[in-house]
Amino acid sequence: MLLSLSTWCDVEAYLQRSRSILLPIGSMEQHGPTGLIGTDAICPQVIAEAAAANNPDILVGPTFSVGCAQHHLGFPGSMTLRPSTMIAAIADWCASLRRHGFERIYWINGHGGNIATIAAAFAEVYAERSLSGPNSNIAALSMRQRNWWELPGVMSTCQRLHPKHEGSHATASEVAVTYAAYPEQVRNLVLDPKVAPNGGFTDAEDYRGRFADGRIGSDPTQATVAAGEEIIAVAAKALREDFLAFAAAKA
Amino acid sequence: MLLSLSTWCDVEAYLQRSRSILLPIGSMEQHGPTGLIGTDAICPQVIAEAAAANNPDILVGPTFSVGCAQHHLGFPGSMTLRPSTMIAAIADWCASLRRHGFERIYWINGHGGNIATIAAAFAEVYAERSLSGPNSNIAALSMRQRNWWELPGVMSTCQRLHPKHEGSHATASEVAVTYAAYPEQVRNLVLDPKVAPNGGFTDAEDYRGRFADGRIGSDPTQATVAAGEEIIAVAAKALREDFLAFAAAKA
Amino acid sequence: MLLSLSTWCDVEAYLQRSRSILLPIGSMEQHGPTGLIGTDAICPQVIAEAAAANNPDILVGPTFSVGCAQHHLGFPGSMTLRPSTMIAAIADWCASLRRHGFERIYWINGHGGNIATIAAAFAEVYAERSLSGPNSNIAALSMRQRNWWELPGVMSTCQRLHPKHEGSHATASEVAVTYAAYPEQVRNLVLDPKVAPNGGFTDAEDYRGRFADGRIGSDPTQATVAAGEEIIAVAAKALREDFLAFAAAKA
Amino acid sequence: MLLSLSTWCDVEAYLQRSRSILLPIGSMEQHGPTGLIGTDAICPQVIAEAAAANNPDILVGPTFSVGCAQHHLGFPGSMTLRPSTMIAAIADWCASLRRHGFERIYWINGHGGNIATIAAAFAEVYAERSLSGPNSNIAALSMRQRNWWELPGVMSTCQRLHPKHEGSHATASEVAVTYAAYPEQVRNLVLDPKVAPNGGFTDAEDYRGRFADGRIGSDPTQATVAAGEEIIAVAAKALREDFLAFAAAKA
Amino acid sequence: MLLSLSTWCDVEAYLQRSRSILLPIGSMEQHGPTGLIGTDAICPQVIAEAAAANNPDILVGPTFSVGCAQHHLGFPGSMTLRPSTMIAAIADWCASLRRHGFERIYWINGHGGNIATIAAAFAEVYAERSLSGPNSNIAALSMRQRNWWELPGVMSTCQRLHPKHEGSHATASEVAVTYAAYPEQVRNLVLDPKVAPNGGFTDAEDYRGRFADGRIGSDPTQATVAAGEEIIAVAAKALREDFLAFAAAKA
Amino acid sequence: MLLSLSTWCDVEAYLQRSRSILLPIGSMEQHGPTGLIGTDAICPQVIAEAAAANNPDILVGPTFSVGCAQHHLGFPGSMTLRPSTMIAAIADWCASLRRHGFERIYWINGHGGNIATIAAAFAEVYAERSLSGPNSNIAALSMRQRNWWELPGVMSTCQRLHPKHEGSHATASEVAVTYAAYPEQVRNLVLDPKVAPNGGFTDAEDYRGRFADGRIGSDPTQATVAAGEEIIAVAAKALREDFLAFAAAKA
Repeated sequence: MLLSLSTWCDVEAYLQRSRSILLPIGSMEQHGPTGLIGTDAICPQVIAEAAAANNPDILVGPTFSVGCAQHHLGFPGSMTLRPSTMIAAIADWCASLRRHGFERIYWINGHGGNIATIAAAFAEVYAERSLSGPNSNIAALSMRQRNWWELPGVMSTCQRLHPKHEGSHATASEVAVTYAAYPEQVRNLVLDPKVAPNGGFTDAEDYRGRFADGRIGSDPTQATVAAGEEIIAVAAKALREDFLAFAAAKA
Repeated sequence: MLLSLSTWCDVEAYLQRSRSILLPIGSMEQHGPTGLIGTDAICPQVIAEAAAANNPDILVGPTFSVGCAQHHLGFPGSMTLRPSTMIAAIADWCASLRRHGFERIYWINGHGGNIATIAAAFAEVYAERSLSGPNSNIAALSMRQRNWWELPGVMSTCQRLHPKHEGSHATASEVAVTYAAYPEQVRNLVLDPKVAPNGGFTDAEDYRGRFADGRIGSDPTQATVAAGEEIIAVAAKALREDFLAFAAAKA
Repeated sequence: MLLSLSTWCDVEAYLQRSRSILLPIGSMEQHGPTGLIGTDAICPQVIAEAAAANNPDILVGPTFSVGCAQHHLGFPGSMTLRPSTMIAAIADWCASLRRHGFERIYWINGHGGNIATIAAAFAEVYAERSLSGPNSNIAALSMRQRNWWELPGVMSTCQRLHPKHEGSHATASEVAVTYAAYPEQVRNLVLDPKVAPNGGFTDAEDYRGRFADGRIGSDPTQATVAAGEEIIAVAAKALREDFLAFAAAKA
Repeated sequence: MLLSLSTWCDVEAYLQRSRSILLPIGSMEQHGPTGLIGTDAICPQVIAEAAAANNPDILVGPTFSVGCAQHHLGFPGSMTLRPSTMIAAIADWCASLRRHGFERIYWINGHGGNIATIAAAFAEVYAERSLSGPNSNIAALSMRQRNWWELPGVMSTCQRLHPKHEGSHATASEVAVTYAAYPEQVRNLVLDPKVAPNGGFTDAEDYRGRFADGRIGSDPTQATVAAGEEIIAVAAKALREDFLAFAAAKA
Repeated sequence: MLLSLSTWCDVEAYLQRSRSILLPIGSMEQHGPTGLIGTDAICPQVIAEAAAANNPDILVGPTFSVGCAQHHLGFPGSMTLRPSTMIAAIADWCASLRRHGFERIYWINGHGGNIATIAAAFAEVYAERSLSGPNSNIAALSMRQRNWWELPGVMSTCQRLHPKHEGSHATASEVAVTYAAYPEQVRNLVLDPKVAPNGGFTDAEDYRGRFADGRIGSDPTQATVAAGEEIIAVAAKALREDFLAFAAAKA
Repeated sequence: MLLSLSTWCDVEAYLQRSRSILLPIGSMEQHGPTGLIGTDAICPQVIAEAAAANNPDILVGPTFSVGCAQHHLGFPGSMTLRPSTMIAAIADWCASLRRHGFERIYWINGHGGNIATIAAAFAEVYAERSLSGPNSNIAALSMRQRNWWELPGVMSTCQRLHPKHEGSHATASEVAVTYAAYPEQVRNLVLDPKVAPNGGFTDAEDYRGRFADGRIGSDPTQATVAAGEEIIAVAAKALREDFLAFAAAKA
């Protein structure tokens, strides 16, 4: 069940069944010469929609599509929020949902660079209630973030599919997921070097200086539609179970 | 050409052809018992994607999907940003795009409640450069916002299709556009009253007190997939022309 | 009755009669070679004071004198707030008045560039209550903004007085209103060109490049004290009626 | 010379003579049963305008009329900015003026409660340049704030006129200045107690609990139009000299 | 009793005895060639710890160590918060303490440049409650700031110890206090000029241009460990009495 | 070398040797009935000072002592910054240091709850430069954060010393470090239960409900001064090496 494709009456009925919602959160940033700029938003959205398919107890909210990607700004098309802006936006989303009676929010994340700021945003939201004292009139929220590649069974699937050169940015697996979602976007290019270098980075200029085509440690030319479909299936099943367990924690 | 489905190399090549980008901006808010919560994001996105189809000179960025909808919070599922948050987020999007050499940003808007805050955000972005003086090292940006229903030919089409009770929220036409985009979401309900009341409003409690099922002035049961397809076609053609004229203003 | 010239006891008594207040809001920005920098603050203040004269049921608050005028910063003396600052300031003014039991705030505006940010500020104020839920302990506020030139009868008067070249910035009518308020400030200059060009604009550098002496579309040399007095009379009468109707809406 | 009543051409010419500007800054807050809510804005504005009269080398900007008055909110009609809002607004005013080439800004203050926040705002403005390093491309500003009652000769005049019970809020002298400016506003009331109590305070509830009618330590029934005129004359002369010395410091 | 060296159970017990807390607040900024960068944090901390020694009714919180020092940034090692950041941080500290039932917060300050921003922060904290009205659910706080050199008996001691050239920045007395606290840090240097110049300043570049080695008006080579010990003893005794009187004001 | 105990001349000389600085960052929060509220600030500070002892190439800045601890506010004495405030403060610290020519900042962290917000603050700082483009006039910074317990060799030492019930909050090892630093603060109490429960948490009310005395998973009664000294020695050595390697990365 997708919030975007629901009426308010649908949501009113859903709230009788569940007080939890699933929100994909990603980024709009370069993923090397063969990866799509939307990769980190597409992956969690596709997996969330697959997890929710035909399940009236999983409501998927809109995708938070532009995240923290300042380090990718050396490559055309990358977009970022400042972390302070992202915290404010996440807080507004949470306050909106809390207003309707949602008590549990599960963020399925597609971008490593978001992890810290999402966690900081959780603390910002919790702090509002914590500072207002034990008799606060602000309703309690409980939040979880999970990276899709860390869902049970996903990493082992990725490693089986791409035992070498999975990498850490523009990975073979995430590119495969986007190819499965958009088969017409498969890019057949020869990359040079075939496997990208590894390492750390600071800001956009530093990043571009270290990683000439944007990839880190990966050979995404391994990515196939079939591999992507397999990863989606594994991840969707794991997400479905994890979300429902999360939702059940407070009935 | 969609930013989300492009590589950074694609965008680098695009910037050789054009310094303009098209961004859909909407809202996640109730649209009555037969309208989808995502209506105001779906409409500009669908029209923008239709406008850009098969045209290498129109790059469509991600949809800014949650906007200013505080007045709809009395209905489950509606989400809002505070205007100050929305201004900060729009400013970050603009700064990201300016960094790559984009000079012109066209926001195609789907929600009346966004208009003021988008305009305020433009002034916030311009003010940064205006305050830094005539020798500013901040590159100039030029921005336009346009509501899709105000594109040339659209309003007359809507009026021809729905000569009565188009309304001003959860309109027959916007619901039709979403039905054309998602035919499986057509809701066949009898609404009571058939035509919603008109009037002004302030905050969410006030709004809900005045408009019992969320609609304002409309009878969206008139909406059909066929009508939606016609509106999309007219709007997409008008948007294509308007965007290209905007993009051509500074070659 | 002017807030600035009242005691707190006067306001306490006023609140027994009315829960509404009238606030002029303007700008400090260039108005061409013959117009005053304070024009957009002077016009709504003069009209508001005339509307309130001898009427114990109209309380006029202080003039919000510096608004959104980033586009005029290419001309010496122009001042601006960033929209985000203006929203914060309007929110503080509203919170102060709400604290005393004011329930309805009518902003009489003198500057087109303020319209969007005032509307965004309204949404910011409303959002605070909307997000806090149906049992909010924040009192409800109801706000209206009206441009003085759009009050009933004003535009037709202006058109009768200046059938040609009224223009859209540094208009003959607004300059006339300031001349009526400050007859010693009448500037008799020959302008070249007599009628300023029309068009759009973005930031301060862009504006100055397009409009060499600051005017848009106007020939303000038509302005006379007599015309200004007539406009003030018409506008004050219309504002008085509109404000009292607004105030009566919730007794 | 008043900015509000000048054209941009006037200001352009002024900047050839001087890089300094004089800004009155006050508050909108209760001043007891006989004092006006606008007292703290009226006093510095009247004195500044008298100081600038017939002097082409003193430009008076708009009055910053609503300041820091949270402690007065227990009395109807009082208005406040939060200090953080006030700092942002002062910073925007300063940035606007710096853009035109103003190098020195003199704030003539009418409200004790503003002193700290004005000083903090100065530090905020200076910090922007200090943090950007010795080769900053931000132009230098030099600012001064002065309370009108601390100008040379003023305090001794006030003490001579009101040797007893001048007080510290709703003082006989500040009320006298407003009566001189608005003789029709003289309030002839018997106050009980005749002399208000003294003491400290924290927030609005605390203040109202300590000072029943809003005054602190004063007997403002001593205030006369004649005394106000004398104070204005002394203060205006002192301000004129102090401003011109300030302006001359950097020629 | 130091908060840092207490357990939460210790604080729980303390709150049965007292609702007040003592917080040292300082700065990290140059103090001339013989003064330590931490001087303004060390002085109030040392004095507060001495005041609290062996007294179970004085709880000393953590030192707020980086304050408002933008004007010192021309000298290596100086650090600053922007005033707006400092206000936000002080507000968070206060909200945390209020949450536990603290009702009175005494800030013992070591830096003149902090005074205004601390006072503005108090107004920011008070404003939150003042704006929420007489039935606010925010608990009342009462705050005081005191500069250590203005505690009863301290200034006269300093003047007796250093009758000449005490100065106003990098003073003989504050340097003496730090030498008493860290005798191994005594710097025996010949300064040229022996006595630093006096004067005002704006930003960092301006300050460095006026005060070549960072001192203002002082000859800190007079500072001795013995003098510092004497000052600490006098100040600690005065602070102990002042804090306990403050704490007793509301039992 | 400690910044607090250095003169600006000392720092000027240091900058000839190194462009790096070491900053301890902690928290002020409950650590169970036997742990000190300052634990998370004390640990990194003690370790940093030990690492820098007798080494002129390691400059230790002030301890950032109050961090993100909203979840501990159910226990008296705990203090927190909101993450947005903490980001602003860290950004100001970084901007101050960058102004002097520091290029590399190493944050040695003592609190798990800070990790996310520190990382978000890094992104905030980097984003400023990344958004300003490849020709930015903002100097580059490179930052690292490291938790002291994750320095090479530390975790294995802790596990050897406390093979069971180390726990994750109020751990035996961190309590031991504070006991080594403040032997007079050793608390000999019997805790019930001896080993605290494990689990997750959200806000302060939730945390207090799950962890009755504040500990998570630990038995800190194992802590001894001797164990603390051993941990400090191991950690200080590892930090010294890691910092110098970090500092050497860009000579």
